[in-house]
Amino acid sequence: MPNTPSLVTSAPGAKFSKAEMPLRPLGETGVHIKILYSGICHSDIHQARDEWFEGIFPMVPGHEIVGEVVAVGPKVTKFKVGQSVGVGTFVDSCRTCEYCQKGMENYCLTGNVQTYNGRHYDGEPSYGGYAQEIVADQNYVVSVPDNLDLASAAPLLCAGITLYSPLKHWQVGPGKKVAILGLGGLGHMGVKFAVAMGAETYVLGHSPNKAADAKEFGALEYLITTDAFETHKNAFDVIINTTSADLDVDGLLGMLKVGGSLVNVGLPGSNQTYNPFSLVTGLKSIAGANTGNIKDTQEMLDFCGKHNIVSTIEMLDATDPSAVDSAYARVVGSDVRYRFVIDASTI
Amino acid sequence: MPNTPSLVTSAPGAKFSKAEMPLRPLGETGVHIKILYSGICHSDIHQARDEWFEGIFPMVPGHEIVGEVVAVGPKVTKFKVGQSVGVGTFVDSCRTCEYCQKGMENYCLTGNVQTYNGRHYDGEPSYGGYAQEIVADQNYVVSVPDNLDLASAAPLLCAGITLYSPLKHWQVGPGKKVAILGLGGLGHMGVKFAVAMGAETYVLGHSPNKAADAKEFGALEYLITTDAFETHKNAFDVIINTTSADLDVDGLLGMLKVGGSLVNVGLPGSNQTYNPFSLVTGLKSIAGANTGNIKDTQEMLDFCGKHNIVSTIEMLDATDPSAVDSAYARVVGSDVRYRFVIDASTI
Repeated sequence: MPNTPSLVTSAPGAKFSKAEMPLRPLGETGVHIKILYSGICHSDIHQARDEWFEGIFPMVPGHEIVGEVVAVGPKVTKFKVGQSVGVGTFVDSCRTCEYCQKGMENYCLTGNVQTYNGRHYDGEPSYGGYAQEIVADQNYVVSVPDNLDLASAAPLLCAGITLYSPLKHWQVGPGKKVAILGLGGLGHMGVKFAVAMGAETYVLGHSPNKAADAKEFGALEYLITTDAFETHKNAFDVIINTTSADLDVDGLLGMLKVGGSLVNVGLPGSNQTYNPFSLVTGLKSIAGANTGNIKDTQEMLDFCGKHNIVSTIEMLDATDPSAVDSAYARVVGSDVRYRFVIDASTI
Repeated sequence: MPNTPSLVTSAPGAKFSKAEMPLRPLGETGVHIKILYSGICHSDIHQARDEWFEGIFPMVPGHEIVGEVVAVGPKVTKFKVGQSVGVGTFVDSCRTCEYCQKGMENYCLTGNVQTYNGRHYDGEPSYGGYAQEIVADQNYVVSVPDNLDLASAAPLLCAGITLYSPLKHWQVGPGKKVAILGLGGLGHMGVKFAVAMGAETYVLGHSPNKAADAKEFGALEYLITTDAFETHKNAFDVIINTTSADLDVDGLLGMLKVGGSLVNVGLPGSNQTYNPFSLVTGLKSIAGANTGNIKDTQEMLDFCGKHNIVSTIEMLDATDPSAVDSAYARVVGSDVRYRFVIDASTI
């Protein structure tokens, strides 16, 4: 099994170093990808630090991958050598459960194979995008439109689809008023998508210094959340929470119109509470959504190609792997506008 | 202003007595109804005891009203003398807000006029169905199909619409699996409706002695809720909570399929808690709904006429008004199968 240069963390919270890590065999339907860019997602940090569950170490994080096809297995029909492609948060699923059969692989009942910090169905650990290469089955690879800046496109593979999917599911579009709670890696994609979908889009947050960016991304207004509890009652059809902070759920529900939904894509670490009256009196919902399926991911990328939507990024040179440690510290401190992307040629 | 014999409680928790209470003026568009039957809803008890908010006393509860039209105002077009009609939980709304304009009067932004324990827009208190007569505007009166037993039809005006409306909104029908949590006044209507709509219907509860009734109402199975947390994971498209008990929200969410909804129509008095992972990992929702609008109430009654659906009731003779006090005690003790209905001729 060939190896590939990678950025590795050897234990929860350990500093990153460089190492050669094994690639998956190409097989009949594999796509061998030379990774060009790899985004740093907040969930990489949670997993590299064992904040969600016990991880598999050594770990190569990264599930916002854009690269170029360098080889394909003999039965690959979807991709050709030289094509720009992406890999997102999972690289396989059981393909047999009711959700896989419906094309909802992100909700695979067996448990899909996470791009990193998971195990392939043969038991081998999965290694992610902080590397120079990856091999993935063609059914879990997507095509990246040629007109997009490839570095800025990398975060679309997780941050992008994580916002696109619920905006589509909750039918955001013309005539709808949407608020995006939190203007970070996820939130800034939500604003760009909601605006492109034709919705009246607002940003809720606590950092007035992000107001200019919010408007640059197309939002009509940046609202301080706690003020908006009073000034924007019955205002929004959908609020998408992209933060992992504890929420004033009832305050947010009060800002929804009748029939509105508070959709969580950010994940607070602790339980949240709500007053049932807040739901019942307005036909309201508290919901959650988990990234998106492969079909929607391709649709999202095509939508981005059409509307020229990419992430706003800071490029990271990983020649010195401690750059990743420093980047993690800045992400945790909400000090990145709006996504770090590793230049894989520096790995 | 004429008066009508009524059952009155003079202070929070006070025993019921008989008194003459004022009727609304008929006006141009009023319908004067001789009340035949009036259901006892659990919310009557909450309000008569000031358990939700400070009530308006003396109070005449009752918002599950069936009767016969005895007079109509000169501009009434919808009803004729002699017709069987019903009045539900509200008797007026602002008619101008965005929800009234959309026919969603139950979510009137101004605040609709509750059938009792509210105030008409002229400031006068509203008096409800525990009486021999009521006058209501024709737009807030519905027609009761002739083939229905009128006494058993009374609870349709609140318990019925409160379940019909969310079952319709969440698109319950053939191919859907539905669980009704709690088999009381609300729950037993939910079972009858879900079955008639063609859904696979289950009951969740903690009283195995209600299993036979559940099946008689058409449910496939009566499940003990806490057991079903384990045996029925990923089982239901919709769970409707009709109880006002504190919930194991995460346990219930675990029983939902991907994309499923836990819909609250019962109202726990305290805040509820959920783990955001329970929502995000399965595209799930916690929702709530509040009775239904006038159009849906009429549709529900027509549906009942077609499918011969009524409530299962115990008739209450109120010759001695303490019968209402005793009935309240039995409702609070979940000792009624499944709704008390007052015979208004005994008031």
